[in-house]
Amino acid sequence: MPSTKPPKGTKDLLPTAARQRQAIVDVIERAYQAHGFEPLATPSIERLDALLGKYGDEGDQLIFRIMKRGANLARALGKDPINQGALADLGLRYDLTVPLARVAAEHQNELPKHFKRYQIQQVWRADRPAKGRFREFSQCDVDIVGCASLGADAEVLSAAATALRELGFKDAIFHTNHRDVLFGLIEAAGIDASLEGSTLVAVDKLDKIGWDGVTKELTERGLNDTQIAALRGMLETDGKQSNDAVLDRLERDLASSQRGAKGVAELRQLLALCAHSPAADYIHISPFLARGLSYYTGPIFEVKTPQLAGSIAAGGRYDRLVGMFLGRDVPAVGFSLGLERLEFVMDALGITPQVGPAVDVCVATFGDLGHATMLASKLRQAGLRVDLHAEDTRLGKQFKYAQQRGVSLVAFAGSNEAAEGNAVLKNLATGQQETLALDGLVEAIRAQLGQEQA
Amino acid sequence: MPSTKPPKGTKDLLPTAARQRQAIVDVIERAYQAHGFEPLATPSIERLDALLGKYGDEGDQLIFRIMKRGANLARALGKDPINQGALADLGLRYDLTVPLARVAAEHQNELPKHFKRYQIQQVWRADRPAKGRFREFSQCDVDIVGCASLGADAEVLSAAATALRELGFKDAIFHTNHRDVLFGLIEAAGIDASLEGSTLVAVDKLDKIGWDGVTKELTERGLNDTQIAALRGMLETDGKQSNDAVLDRLERDLASSQRGAKGVAELRQLLALCAHSPAADYIHISPFLARGLSYYTGPIFEVKTPQLAGSIAAGGRYDRLVGMFLGRDVPAVGFSLGLERLEFVMDALGITPQVGPAVDVCVATFGDLGHATMLASKLRQAGLRVDLHAEDTRLGKQFKYAQQRGVSLVAFAGSNEAAEGNAVLKNLATGQQETLALDGLVEAIRAQLGQEQA
Repeated sequence: MPSTKPPKGTKDLLPTAARQRQAIVDVIERAYQAHGFEPLATPSIERLDALLGKYGDEGDQLIFRIMKRGANLARALGKDPINQGALADLGLRYDLTVPLARVAAEHQNELPKHFKRYQIQQVWRADRPAKGRFREFSQCDVDIVGCASLGADAEVLSAAATALRELGFKDAIFHTNHRDVLFGLIEAAGIDASLEGSTLVAVDKLDKIGWDGVTKELTERGLNDTQIAALRGMLETDGKQSNDAVLDRLERDLASSQRGAKGVAELRQLLALCAHSPAADYIHISPFLARGLSYYTGPIFEVKTPQLAGSIAAGGRYDRLVGMFLGRDVPAVGFSLGLERLEFVMDALGITPQVGPAVDVCVATFGDLGHATMLASKLRQAGLRVDLHAEDTRLGKQFKYAQQRGVSLVAFAGSNEAAEGNAVLKNLATGQQETLALDGLVEAIRAQLGQEQA
Repeated sequence: MPSTKPPKGTKDLLPTAARQRQAIVDVIERAYQAHGFEPLATPSIERLDALLGKYGDEGDQLIFRIMKRGANLARALGKDPINQGALADLGLRYDLTVPLARVAAEHQNELPKHFKRYQIQQVWRADRPAKGRFREFSQCDVDIVGCASLGADAEVLSAAATALRELGFKDAIFHTNHRDVLFGLIEAAGIDASLEGSTLVAVDKLDKIGWDGVTKELTERGLNDTQIAALRGMLETDGKQSNDAVLDRLERDLASSQRGAKGVAELRQLLALCAHSPAADYIHISPFLARGLSYYTGPIFEVKTPQLAGSIAAGGRYDRLVGMFLGRDVPAVGFSLGLERLEFVMDALGITPQVGPAVDVCVATFGDLGHATMLASKLRQAGLRVDLHAEDTRLGKQFKYAQQRGVSLVAFAGSNEAAEGNAVLKNLATGQQETLALDGLVEAIRAQLGQEQA
């Protein structure tokens, strides 16, 4: 017999968890809609060539590949030697940003000049599962395509910050940096541009492995002691400086780098644009933040909370990704919340939304299933959420079933009540029970539900 | 450059389409919730061994298979000869019923005795795309696990019928039959039980290929003329008989078959249980309906409309599917609406839900981006859905952008207005424009939105 567990790195959401997730998604959607974003949905599967080469080598390895089918598969298997890459033609979506870039390129002439879309869908990565990290997980993305202004960066920051604020996140930190600041650091430290990538990968681990670890890694990657000391001098901080103080220092340190100075100026402008938005409370300039994804070109963001080692959200500007589908660049910036990670932290903080019973009243079957179905239909017509216990078992068992579903009210009619056009309404919480004409039943149910909520 | 089209058999939902779909899903969810169902979500990927052998040979061929990764893939490719089946370990979900059966088996001790769940998620089939038929599509399922009573069948019928009624489907037909009636027909026609499967496959095509086509196919499959004539005698109908008349005739024709008679009796009972539900208007007893999926054991349903050759919904009782995961049978019955097919027919009928603008007011940038972001934040705090045009281009261009997004109201402040704490509110539909104190702005926007809706 096959296993009844979901595959490694995935999970089933039973009703309460599914309803709690829906409550969280509702909050996020409202925040995104308040910022003028509209929904987009793209297929879960993409052509492999649309996915490959967008996420760096490591990303390419983590894409779930879907095998070719029928004759195409036979052909690929018939080759000697077999080309592994030719066995698959499709892949599961790795993020929601690349599909957006594809859609923006495909529909460039129909979309508004600034395309503001949100997208809440699943993505898949064949990663090692860990706390809050799944192989199938949901991203809640908000992006603006077609706007080069830093005002767009401020918009997505505001949308993401509003969502987190409304969900109850108080101590989230939006670590913020800029690709040009990172480049400026490399330049100012006298490190060759060819070593930029490997240097940033090492620096990005600073909060995990500390300066000793980073120094060791940088040495291995070919940096000399002078360069490492220069980098450290620019990046070391007590973490208590104000954003303005950090920017002032970076401005001095990166004065010799034109790109670095531009990055600092943009971060300063971005901070000013966020002054009146909910993002103001969360933003923290973090010069050593280097996002792994290779497609970022401007400001970059990563949101952390004390409850989880990994980030719960991330984003940035990626002005060259749409160009990979279109042949000419289109500016774009976005933010992505990781739903499962939000859920993990909310659970740890005890701020998961509570959901009430899914049912207003249960109808029990008491001798005549036909009469019970009629009663249930009548109550549904009145707009109530009604569960019908469709088996004529002992009433006591049916009451237990209602309680198991979190429902206090049970309606039923024996042959006497049915003959007189009445029904019995029992409140399992209070033990009260009354016989009512069918016309008065709905009103009585509404009244008792109102008392429950009060 | 990679193609910007979505993969074959899939589609992107641009904002209006995505919002229309959400409106449809909301109606379906409300109908399901009114019947006491709660949501479940399962992973898109399942272990291949959970999927294979549940949908018949043809179904197995249509499952999208996900390649093994890393060392496991290398091992599978290193074998000589290569075992195709060993190259993949996971598959994309083919329907929502098998995952439900897996979940019901896994959580048998935690779930209510009658587990009433709905599930609105995507499924994938490597089928030939056609009108309303996609390779990635969405099913809206409603099932009851753990209840053997026909009342459960009536419940899922009522839930599905309510959803279709609320969506505006007037001429849908719920073709209804019973596996035991089909078996009875085979028995009463003197056909060997071993030919049941192939006979039913042929009979199921009756409305596509007519009696001539069916006769030809049955002959090829080994039935003799007497058997075919007997079948035809029992099945031929002018399509105008009442459900009761069809059942009366079946009762006579199948009197010699114990299982057949039981099937007829159950259909009669089911009809009676639906008398007061929205399903009453839709149900049509169709003795030649034979659903393709092999897991059905009792009543079976297929919903058709004149606008589409294929069915828009289907369902039935499958009392042995959970047992394939659990080792002991658990009764279950369910219904599934095909979302893309509903959308196709609703489009043809002109009953697709209309959605209004996604934004209440646009804020234009007029010289000072910082002031515009402040204005947008203020309006959002008041609960409005606000788009900020974050580029300081000509106002006329910004008005055009707002109109492109379907928004009539634009707010902005030049340096004079900003200095005096005012803003301009322009109505692009009426051409009216007024200068207001910030405090009065929200009220004025609300008033004009109210007029628009009226």
